[in-house]
Amino acid sequence: MGAIITVTTDFGLTDAYVAAMKGVILGINPEARLVDICHTIKPQNIRQAAFVLSTAYPFFPSGTVHLVVIDPGVGTDRRAIILSTPSAQFVAPDNGVLSYVIAQSSAEPHETYPDQGQIELPAGLEAVAITRPKFWRSPVSPTFHGRDIFSPVAARLSLGVPATDFGETVTAVTMLPLSYPQLTSENTLVGHIRHIDNFGNLTTNIRSKDLPREIQSITIEVSHHLISGLSQTYASGDGLLALIGSSGYLEIALKNGNAGSFLNADIGDEVTVRSRR
Amino acid sequence: MGAIITVTTDFGLTDAYVAAMKGVILGINPEARLVDICHTIKPQNIRQAAFVLSTAYPFFPSGTVHLVVIDPGVGTDRRAIILSTPSAQFVAPDNGVLSYVIAQSSAEPHETYPDQGQIELPAGLEAVAITRPKFWRSPVSPTFHGRDIFSPVAARLSLGVPATDFGETVTAVTMLPLSYPQLTSENTLVGHIRHIDNFGNLTTNIRSKDLPREIQSITIEVSHHLISGLSQTYASGDGLLALIGSSGYLEIALKNGNAGSFLNADIGDEVTVRSRR
Amino acid sequence: MGAIITVTTDFGLTDAYVAAMKGVILGINPEARLVDICHTIKPQNIRQAAFVLSTAYPFFPSGTVHLVVIDPGVGTDRRAIILSTPSAQFVAPDNGVLSYVIAQSSAEPHETYPDQGQIELPAGLEAVAITRPKFWRSPVSPTFHGRDIFSPVAARLSLGVPATDFGETVTAVTMLPLSYPQLTSENTLVGHIRHIDNFGNLTTNIRSKDLPREIQSITIEVSHHLISGLSQTYASGDGLLALIGSSGYLEIALKNGNAGSFLNADIGDEVTVRSRR
Repeated sequence: MGAIITVTTDFGLTDAYVAAMKGVILGINPEARLVDICHTIKPQNIRQAAFVLSTAYPFFPSGTVHLVVIDPGVGTDRRAIILSTPSAQFVAPDNGVLSYVIAQSSAEPHETYPDQGQIELPAGLEAVAITRPKFWRSPVSPTFHGRDIFSPVAARLSLGVPATDFGETVTAVTMLPLSYPQLTSENTLVGHIRHIDNFGNLTTNIRSKDLPREIQSITIEVSHHLISGLSQTYASGDGLLALIGSSGYLEIALKNGNAGSFLNADIGDEVTVRSRR
Repeated sequence: MGAIITVTTDFGLTDAYVAAMKGVILGINPEARLVDICHTIKPQNIRQAAFVLSTAYPFFPSGTVHLVVIDPGVGTDRRAIILSTPSAQFVAPDNGVLSYVIAQSSAEPHETYPDQGQIELPAGLEAVAITRPKFWRSPVSPTFHGRDIFSPVAARLSLGVPATDFGETVTAVTMLPLSYPQLTSENTLVGHIRHIDNFGNLTTNIRSKDLPREIQSITIEVSHHLISGLSQTYASGDGLLALIGSSGYLEIALKNGNAGSFLNADIGDEVTVRSRR
Repeated sequence: MGAIITVTTDFGLTDAYVAAMKGVILGINPEARLVDICHTIKPQNIRQAAFVLSTAYPFFPSGTVHLVVIDPGVGTDRRAIILSTPSAQFVAPDNGVLSYVIAQSSAEPHETYPDQGQIELPAGLEAVAITRPKFWRSPVSPTFHGRDIFSPVAARLSLGVPATDFGETVTAVTMLPLSYPQLTSENTLVGHIRHIDNFGNLTTNIRSKDLPREIQSITIEVSHHLISGLSQTYASGDGLLALIGSSGYLEIALKNGNAGSFLNADIGDEVTVRSRR
């Protein structure tokens, strides 16, 4: 049974760029099992892609190769890398699109990262710069490394070629500044909206474990609306509600509605959690 | 060769919820063949999902597992079921999303159903309530049973685990009120628009066999427009035309155009067929 | 390992027509590997489909079957064909949707084609009219040959059934008028915009080899804007730039932006290349 290769891009659904990549992959590994994660990332939105990827990759079996092509710097001297974690391999430009993967794969708490620019890879992760043209398509288009470099590399990784065959090991990679909620007073935690999903649910950067233990005694403020306590499901209560979403983060939803539209909310908006103790 | 699992959701194309489900499935059955039916069902639109599913599942080979996650009641006490027909298995919330499957799998004419709320399963169908956590992911997120319950169940069904291993047999399931055309006089049949497709073609709930035999002598009225007789193809005649669509239902189309926009038509609008005898 | 079948349609993402076709294919060839090229071709836009297909098929391995259903004339006497090239097979209506495939598969320069209506197939290509109902679904819906004729034919081709088993050989096929850039004076080449991609990049019909050798001495005019010389990458320079895209055609892009929106550009707009010699 062939290895799984997931594909994440900002190529949209109408152009055939994704299909061209899949054709290249299947030409090298006819047994590869291709799974789309997302192709409607906003053009060149590295941060959105990093987040969307982070909500899918943990659920794939060990040995999966994740191909991520959000690559505004294609053809420039931006680096391309293979990142190996204990359970998966990622092929991507080294532009921060793997930031959540790196943060989540690390044993250290995220907050200790310098969290911007180049960081030392945490223990347990390995990265290789993709520099050896031997495994690429030829000639390489300077505008489509996804097809000519990333896809053949991912296909050969899925066949078991070791990452180190594709280039030299590197120890520092690019990290986006990931924001974490801040305790602004003893009983006030300020986070923000990180993602708005298809249902209009607002995912915040506040984890379940960041919340006070007495979660029924908290008040959540977002866009001048107050929500008391946590619900278990989207169908609980009436109107606006807060719950712990399926990835473990605090989420704001509107029963039978779209919280994003209702609140006119945007990514980056503040979400404040107050403990009433 | 692995079993086929189709996937139908209202998760949209930008979030990675569908990919997370596929990752879970492939972790359990690496040979599963995943086929998307639709992920752009309007959020929580059970009726639309029921219809779209009904236009695809009959064309899949025997033994296919259909995973359907339109689940506004996720995490509440709404039931989850496995429905087994002679040729396929369906894994879905018991909220009516399988209504057309049930109606179409029954030997009895649809019209005899109570057609609302809980109905006794017709002969030949079997249903199991999904209640045994043994086969679920753990812990289960109360907001994403698609990933944590439905996907592992579908994956194991596709490996041949019997439906009865997942919970107890049930004999009554939820049915949406499906509307059927009404004969309002000896020569007048009133139906309605059930679906508007990507081309703007209007699918009605009037079947080929509901029409009078002399189909060239009928007049069809929709949005104050009259159409005489039936065409064979979308390219016949001029302007508005009526024909029997590929699923056996009366359809209204506009040659080289979009009937839905032209008529400003909506789902539920009346379509009247008059026989000129 | 099963043969690859790619699928290109104008069926959109919300109806289940594509899934119905895949169900039919997998019922005949359970090992077929299905890859979507595009399903968001504008309804009945044969020219767009022909172009999008042309940017993907060359990257698939030898032996791939390409199923293309953009079929405004479905059910009429328009012909359905199997086109065999040295490396692939195409199943499609004979309405011009394979025009670029034919032009690109020919050893002769494109410009020598009559380029409109019926043309003699170039050497090396073979075509068969799909006329033998033996391999079709039965009954055939006059409105959905994609499901009832094209899909079963593609599935059986992928199993190795020879093209000639499906009907009689034909030597002339339908060709769209493809436009080529014109040399309007010794140092002026006039082409046009052929496609606008997801990033707003404007692909022209001017090939790399149509350009003068001293490419840094050219000026490109589009929508009353002038661009000097060629860039290597989308991240070069500032503002509007021109480069050779990944399919070998001159492309106009806007650094960190959308050239299509910025220029209010449309398909068919003129692009003029002047040599400053």
